[in-house]
Formats: sequence, structure tokens, C-alpha cells
Amino acid sequence: MPTTVKAYAATSATEPQKPFEIQRRDVGPKDVAIDIKFAGICHSDIHTARSEWGPANYPVVVGHEIAGVVTEVGSEVTKYAVGDRVGVGCMVDSCGECVNCEAGEEQFCLKGMIGTYNSVGKDGEPTQGGYSQAIVVTEGFVCRIPDGLELDVAAPLLCAGITTYSPLRHWGAGPGKKVAVIGLGGLGHMAVKIAHAMGAEVTVLSQSLKKQEDGLRLGADHYHATSDEDTFSALRGQFDLIVNTVSAQLDFDKYMSLLAVRGALVNVGLPEDPISLRMFSVVGGSKNFAGSNIGGIRETQEMLDFCAEHGIGAEVEVIPAEKINEAYERVVASDVRYRFVIDTATL
Amino acid sequence: MPTTVKAYAATSATEPQKPFEIQRRDVGPKDVAIDIKFAGICHSDIHTARSEWGPANYPVVVGHEIAGVVTEVGSEVTKYAVGDRVGVGCMVDSCGECVNCEAGEEQFCLKGMIGTYNSVGKDGEPTQGGYSQAIVVTEGFVCRIPDGLELDVAAPLLCAGITTYSPLRHWGAGPGKKVAVIGLGGLGHMAVKIAHAMGAEVTVLSQSLKKQEDGLRLGADHYHATSDEDTFSALRGQFDLIVNTVSAQLDFDKYMSLLAVRGALVNVGLPEDPISLRMFSVVGGSKNFAGSNIGGIRETQEMLDFCAEHGIGAEVEVIPAEKINEAYERVVASDVRYRFVIDTATL
Repeated sequence: MPTTVKAYAATSATEPQKPFEIQRRDVGPKDVAIDIKFAGICHSDIHTARSEWGPANYPVVVGHEIAGVVTEVGSEVTKYAVGDRVGVGCMVDSCGECVNCEAGEEQFCLKGMIGTYNSVGKDGEPTQGGYSQAIVVTEGFVCRIPDGLELDVAAPLLCAGITTYSPLRHWGAGPGKKVAVIGLGGLGHMAVKIAHAMGAEVTVLSQSLKKQEDGLRLGADHYHATSDEDTFSALRGQFDLIVNTVSAQLDFDKYMSLLAVRGALVNVGLPEDPISLRMFSVVGGSKNFAGSNIGGIRETQEMLDFCAEHGIGAEVEVIPAEKINEAYERVVASDVRYRFVIDTATL
Repeated sequence: MPTTVKAYAATSATEPQKPFEIQRRDVGPKDVAIDIKFAGICHSDIHTARSEWGPANYPVVVGHEIAGVVTEVGSEVTKYAVGDRVGVGCMVDSCGECVNCEAGEEQFCLKGMIGTYNSVGKDGEPTQGGYSQAIVVTEGFVCRIPDGLELDVAAPLLCAGITTYSPLRHWGAGPGKKVAVIGLGGLGHMAVKIAHAMGAEVTVLSQSLKKQEDGLRLGADHYHATSDEDTFSALRGQFDLIVNTVSAQLDFDKYMSLLAVRGALVNVGLPEDPISLRMFSVVGGSKNFAGSNIGGIRETQEMLDFCAEHGIGAEVEVIPAEKINEAYERVVASDVRYRFVIDTATL
């Protein structure tokens, strides 16, 4: 029998989110029921709740940075037991059989991964996300949160953490490598912490020097304002890797000029309009203009283990559910250092 | 005492090229004097001769696909002896000391590599290229042409060969990999031959099926017309690597959609205007929009050895010097299968 749980839902693109009740499915043989403790607020939540990425299926409960505790496991579950501390990110299922699923890159499932919210589950029901008291997820899409990590600072790792960890790992951030991070927001601050922990020399490229003190405290070795043209001449050809966490249009040729030979500028955000790039920016220096989209479940677990080992959590501002709408305004205004996390006990 | 040699030179952006005499420097301690036998005609020659890439320093002798025989070596030369069969490509010198030179990527010399023509040598004199009887080059920028390769079909390898070999090697073309080549011209036909020899499954993406028979003969497994919209739906998500040999504007988002997860579209040409790309084309699928610029001397030698081992030369039409201007018109009209090579005995 489905369980009714409290949640916060968007009921239209324009109305504030409000308290709402949703049903969670019975725990199937391979399912894990999770008592959600904290849910991070990702900018993607806002885009979906407001139908900015196409019409959402209302009412929708968003949230894909979920941290909680296992309360029940199905008869065939082997990885988790009641009481385990776990997390759920952007996906709750996939076909499990295609070449990408088999490679552990479920985010690229050829049949389409099933998103944690605003998607349709294998049971045919709309999926509802983490702004809720509990969730039921097949064990293959549940990750373990190691003991060293508090659940509130772990929640944002499930999206912001893996989104930045994956390109840093893939492109070889580590000792002897110079890594720049464009933007010091929810994603950017995780990129700085993780790249620093990987042993890279980290530079923040931010519009202004407003957050310089924070950036250096979080692990950056250098901090430069991109509003200062001298930044681009001073840093020309310096970086092996630039992770762009900003979704706005940028003068990408200028940023490409900061890359060393065979360097990569990896984008994790999605500006709406097409971007413009001079072909010389990639051909000269044999460079890469690349993208990265979250990470697979195996890599998400690897990221959580890495973060626990290095004592890395997100910098969070924990809020009660009633502050969700206000928090959205502040996220849009970039007024958060660096991630809002909802205490779901307040739902 | 400098040696006077016959050449063909461009004397202005608009006049036809014509017979001309140039001086070659004395053979210094580390120099190799080469009797040029064949010189390929690369589209870059045309751009330079016509000042399409900025004003050329007239008179200019172009040509950077040079194959010949050593006639004299300096007292400190160790790699070559008189009678050796050798080639010279796009570069004749570099600083030799910067991080890129030390990494064997002289094409990215931080002080600027010295081009084979329209550049200034370390002696302060303008460099003059391969449309000439002889050239003197420091031994570090001379490559050996293995015995198995005829000099006429080897000449184009020094630019068209390395330009396509380098990205194929860097991005892992080989058994089990699906590689597409956009355009079947001077560069494209080399990409097909080399990718095939590397063991990849090769697809040509050409505007029409006009050269299909050639493409399959040269080693392609498949051949598709990009003027047919069905090509893009049929091949969606198929390729690990696409090498774009075309310098024209393309609908790059459509080509990116043909890549598999983490695939790369690598460009070796330079359209004049900035290109347009949707960010989703790289973020979705964690893909790469990359570039590649010739290759270093060590890799050029590796490419020549690879081509000799696999019996690969360019498909050439050997012409006398008096046909250079006519050949230029035909290159611009894509009317060559697949590379003009000048027999320098006719100068």
C-alpha cells in the first residue's frame, strides 16, 4: 500500500511552492525506502518548477540532492540495510541494459534515464523529488554516504558534487595540473574544494573579487576578477583544465586563450542560446571545448567516498521548508554561500 | 656562400605564380641540404600566396609538403647522411627550449614556430618553401622517409598526413572504434586511409555520393551523403570520433548528434567566421568539440613510419611547375583526387 508523505510542491510555473502530500510506492523486492533528512536546492529545481526548461508536469515536487536514512529494504536488496545513511541524486532508474548503463554511465541511458522528479517511473507514475519526507528508490540508484560526512553538507554532493567531480577526474585534475574554475556558486565552490583535494593548483575566475576571501579559504590558490581585462593577458596559456560552472553567455574565445596546449574548457551549465566560438580557439593549441553531464552511479559513490576521505562537504545554509520560495529568489540573485539545504523535518 | 636555386614564387596576391630564383643559406653545422624532388600543393599554400590569411611577404615561395634527398650535411649532423630520403613539413625551426618544444610539440612553440614559408628564420631571412629545387633545414626539423614510400606519394604526408594522423592517434582511433571523416579531399582521403590502417571502422560523411567508389576503395567501410537528412537520423549517436577536414561552416550541432557518449568532433580546418554551437551539444553526452593543429616532429616521424608499414601514400596527381596556377584553380574548385604534387625537376 503506498505511503502518503508530506512534501513541498510547485503547482504551476508562476505560483509559489506550497505544502503538498504525495504517495510513495510500496517497497518492491529491490527497493530501498529512505527517510529524507535534507534536500539541497539546485538551480535546476528552479528551472523545472518554473517550466523554464519546457512545461513541467504539475504538481511537481523537485529536489535531487537527497540525503537520508534507510527505513526499509526489499527482499532482494543486498547493498543496504535499515539505518544506513544514503543519498539519491538526479536519477532514480534507467534501462540497465544499454551500452551506457553497462558502462556505468546511467545518465546517458539510451532509453533515457529516469529523473528523480518530473519524469515517469517504471511504474508509470510521475517521479517526485527530494522536497519531501521520504522516497522509495531501486537500490542501484542509491549511494552510501560515508560516516565521516554529515547529511546536511552531503546532500548537495549528489548533484553539485558529482557534476564537478566527474570532469575534474575525467580530465586529470591532480598534482602538477593547473585548474581554473569559472564562477564561485553552488557548483563552483564544490569544484574548488574537490580540485584542491585532488592536488591541483586551483584558480577561481569570478566576475569580481567579492568572494575572494571565501575562494581562498575553500582551497583556491589564486583568485582573479574576469571584469579586469588584465586577467586574460596575465593568465594566457596557463591552464590545463577550466571548469565552467556558469550558465550565462561568455566570451568563450577569451577563456579558451587561457588554456595551455591540449587543454580543455569543460562546461557543466547550459546557456539557452547557442554559443559562438572561433575555430582557431580549438585548432590553435589542439584544445577542447567540452561538456560534462553529472556522472554515473558508480562515479557518484566514488565521489562521496573521496569527499569523506578529504573531509569535503558543501558550504550550506540550512533552511526550513517555509523558506523555499524566498531561497529561490536568493539563488536567482546569486545570494547564497553556497547551497541552500532544506531540513525536511520542517515539512 | 648561399646557393641560388630555381623556384616558383607568388609576387603579389593577385598575379599568377611564376619562375623565380631564391638563395638557400650555407649548410651550417646542424643543417641538412635537401634536393627537393616533389612538393605537394596544400590549400594553405593558396591562402598564403593570395594573402587570404593576412598579407604575405612577397615574393613568397610556398610549399610545405616536401620530399627529397639529402645532398650535404653539416659537421654536427648525426641523424642524416648524403643520399638519405627525407621530408620537411610545415615547420623548419622553433625555440627548442620551451615546454611545448621539450614535449615534442614544436608546432606550439611558445616563441612561435618558424614556418617553412612566409616566416622569418633564425638567420633573419624570410623562409621560402618547397616549390623549389633545394632547401636547407636544421636536422631537428627533417624527417626520414622510409624506403617503402615513394617520394611523390610521401610528400603530402608531411602536412595532410600528420594533420589527420595526430588527432586520430590522440583520440584513440583503432579496433572497435567508429570513426567518421567529414569531407573527402586532400586531408579527408588521408584520414580515411590512416583510420582504416589503425583498425577503426571508417565512415565518410560527404556532401554527395559522387566519390563513394573512391572512398570505399581507400578504406572506408561506409559512405553517406550529408545532403540527405536521413543520414543524420540513421547515424545518430554512432561515432566515437569525427574528424572534420572541411573548412566551411557546418551545422555543428547536427554533427555533434552523431557522436556517442564522450565522443569527440575534432576540427582541423579553419572557417573564417565564428561557429555556432548549442551548449547542449557538448554537455549532453559529455562530448568534445576539439581542434588539432598538424603535429610535432617526433609524431610526424611516427606517422611516416606508420604509413610506410601500412603501405599508405597520398593519392596524387603529379604536375609540372607550369601547371601550378591551373592546379590552384582546381584545388579551389575541389577538382583533384586527391593531392597535386609538383615534380620539381620541371622548375
